[in-house]
Amino acid sequence: MFIDFKKELESASKGMIMIHDPKLLIKLIIRMIVRKLKVKHAGMLLFDPQKEHYVLSISRGEAGVKIPQGFTKFTTENPVIKLFSDKRYSHLVGDRNAIVLDDITRMIWGENIIERDANITKLLSGVIEQMEMLNSTACVPAYYQNNLLAILLLGEKYDKSKFEQEELDFFSALASDAAMAIRNAQLFEDLRREADRNRKQYIRTIIVLGSTIEAKDKYTHGHTERVTQYSLAIARKMAADQELEVTDEFFERLYIGALLHDIGKIGIPENILNKNGKLTEEEYAVIKGHPAKGEEIIKPLELHEHCVSGIRHHHERCDGTGYPDGLKGDAIPIVACIIATADAYDAMITDRPYRKALTRETAIDIIKSNTGTQFDPRVVRVFLDLAQRRVI
Amino acid sequence: MFIDFKKELESASKGMIMIHDPKLLIKLIIRMIVRKLKVKHAGMLLFDPQKEHYVLSISRGEAGVKIPQGFTKFTTENPVIKLFSDKRYSHLVGDRNAIVLDDITRMIWGENIIERDANITKLLSGVIEQMEMLNSTACVPAYYQNNLLAILLLGEKYDKSKFEQEELDFFSALASDAAMAIRNAQLFEDLRREADRNRKQYIRTIIVLGSTIEAKDKYTHGHTERVTQYSLAIARKMAADQELEVTDEFFERLYIGALLHDIGKIGIPENILNKNGKLTEEEYAVIKGHPAKGEEIIKPLELHEHCVSGIRHHHERCDGTGYPDGLKGDAIPIVACIIATADAYDAMITDRPYRKALTRETAIDIIKSNTGTQFDPRVVRVFLDLAQRRVI
Repeated sequence: MFIDFKKELESASKGMIMIHDPKLLIKLIIRMIVRKLKVKHAGMLLFDPQKEHYVLSISRGEAGVKIPQGFTKFTTENPVIKLFSDKRYSHLVGDRNAIVLDDITRMIWGENIIERDANITKLLSGVIEQMEMLNSTACVPAYYQNNLLAILLLGEKYDKSKFEQEELDFFSALASDAAMAIRNAQLFEDLRREADRNRKQYIRTIIVLGSTIEAKDKYTHGHTERVTQYSLAIARKMAADQELEVTDEFFERLYIGALLHDIGKIGIPENILNKNGKLTEEEYAVIKGHPAKGEEIIKPLELHEHCVSGIRHHHERCDGTGYPDGLKGDAIPIVACIIATADAYDAMITDRPYRKALTRETAIDIIKSNTGTQFDPRVVRVFLDLAQRRVI
Repeated sequence: MFIDFKKELESASKGMIMIHDPKLLIKLIIRMIVRKLKVKHAGMLLFDPQKEHYVLSISRGEAGVKIPQGFTKFTTENPVIKLFSDKRYSHLVGDRNAIVLDDITRMIWGENIIERDANITKLLSGVIEQMEMLNSTACVPAYYQNNLLAILLLGEKYDKSKFEQEELDFFSALASDAAMAIRNAQLFEDLRREADRNRKQYIRTIIVLGSTIEAKDKYTHGHTERVTQYSLAIARKMAADQELEVTDEFFERLYIGALLHDIGKIGIPENILNKNGKLTEEEYAVIKGHPAKGEEIIKPLELHEHCVSGIRHHHERCDGTGYPDGLKGDAIPIVACIIATADAYDAMITDRPYRKALTRETAIDIIKSNTGTQFDPRVVRVFLDLAQRRVI
């Protein structure tokens, strides 16, 4: 019977390395062991390098063990861990690939009980106590480069037969494969988390960067956030209407472009930016410098061209009379067309130094009547739809 | 002899999964195979999922093969790849775990040559041509979930004996372990790269964020960068003198704190920030608001307290007369003490709206004479040392 499942287990353990979710992997391994080995239950004590203790995962089901609360974590002071990891006790384990309950009992009573260090008797009693609590008949350690990675805990077999040495040798190899696969998955998860954390910090910093302009331009409170929301809503609808083929990357680039569209205003003097009266021609020329200035500011970020075009071209107009490059129609990148519409709309419905806010309806009418000259018709179509449904 | 190295190879392949550098891993595996199998050379065709082709890695040495330039990449059109990956030809491979040169020759001439599809003959001739070019006697495919991950290429054995089926079976298992370990390492490397890229983008964005203030405050051109450099130099020297226990994390936090120390000035009106004459009491009060304002701006970033303290407390003074909290002596975080000294020094040696730059020597004298009242004595000691050596 042993030979039957051996091959099966070996091939099942092959794919372990490709599973990168540690929790799932532990579950799969324990389940596989219980089913194939016909033991009543199995568990694994697995080293957590961050927390420097061993964490217990155990099979559930009727034959499972009830672990007292707070007993899912084992420090290096735990007798079972100590027996396998503390060099002072390595002679007790010797060349055994595993320890079975009977071995320990025999050690306690059989070997040189009189001359023995009292600590050893204490440790061995502790091991028995722990194994009984965990309802385990055998403990199989797994090492990688002399470090104890895990201990596989095996319950009694259903047929109550003893574990043979050949079986224990095999479990030992299996435990070591499993422990390495789990360790691998943990490292993967750590790295995944690091990548996500760094990404989150990056996006947060982009948001803060985009919001700096609001500290300066008192009329733009919340403007950046609203333009970003409108832009994303428009792109989502365009994608839904199959007006635009968009990937997750496109959404992210639009998001970044919208957050930073006005960043160039950081370089415009406040007396021009916040002027109450009509701007002189020179002052207006300075204002018109903000898209190019913005592109210059974000240059060190080496952003994707979609992001950059949202910053540089959000004041272009379909008829080619916009700035800074006087691009016409299709030559204006779609990211810029989307931000341009969202930006113009939000500017109209909020107070500005030189005028009061227009009503929603007036603003929508103005956008409608400037379709094709100022605004991109594909964008306006979606914008009007969203506006009618009060999404914008 | 086969049994001898089998065990050794098995145990050597165990640790593969923990090696996360794909190039190193491939090298190690190929070297191990050449040494243990006593073949003249070995190689591996490994799938590159990004580029969607197979890349050849091969053992060097006298028995190695000279691969013609441009022949290190194999598309799915390559006959060897096609034979093992294209379902139309799977009947040719059948249950064989590997293909040896003799098999192919036999197939071409021996099996139903008349009735056979001409494409098959062409494919098989191509396989022979490729194997001869690669100086390979056997090709062992490795699959994961029905995808061809790799092909292990084996040269002739030194003793010129034929490969036995038992050997080929074993190589097949080994190739599959190796391919999975390599795939795992590749995924690791991808993730590592992603994490690094995200981190780089984060730091770049912090730098851009820190530099925004220079677009506004015309007297601070390069100030942020210099203060950051001085601060890092001081910390490095303090660490070298064992004045300060610093980790890599500490350096990074100091770096971020220094880059952003004046970010709060973004909220101060330009007419106050760039005023030529003496500031009124009210105006000075506004200026003094910049550290707290800075802390507020960077709040969404949830930065480490070291970074935050560099922003909030870089105008505190040892005697407790600084702002915003009037912290005294040891109560001032060391990051803030370092930035405060670097900031004051750079401010003195550059032109300001209200005065010309002081000479280096005067600035150093002023810092010296304000030690213990304004500046932290531990920081000043190191600062003077660096200034004398012209590092600062």
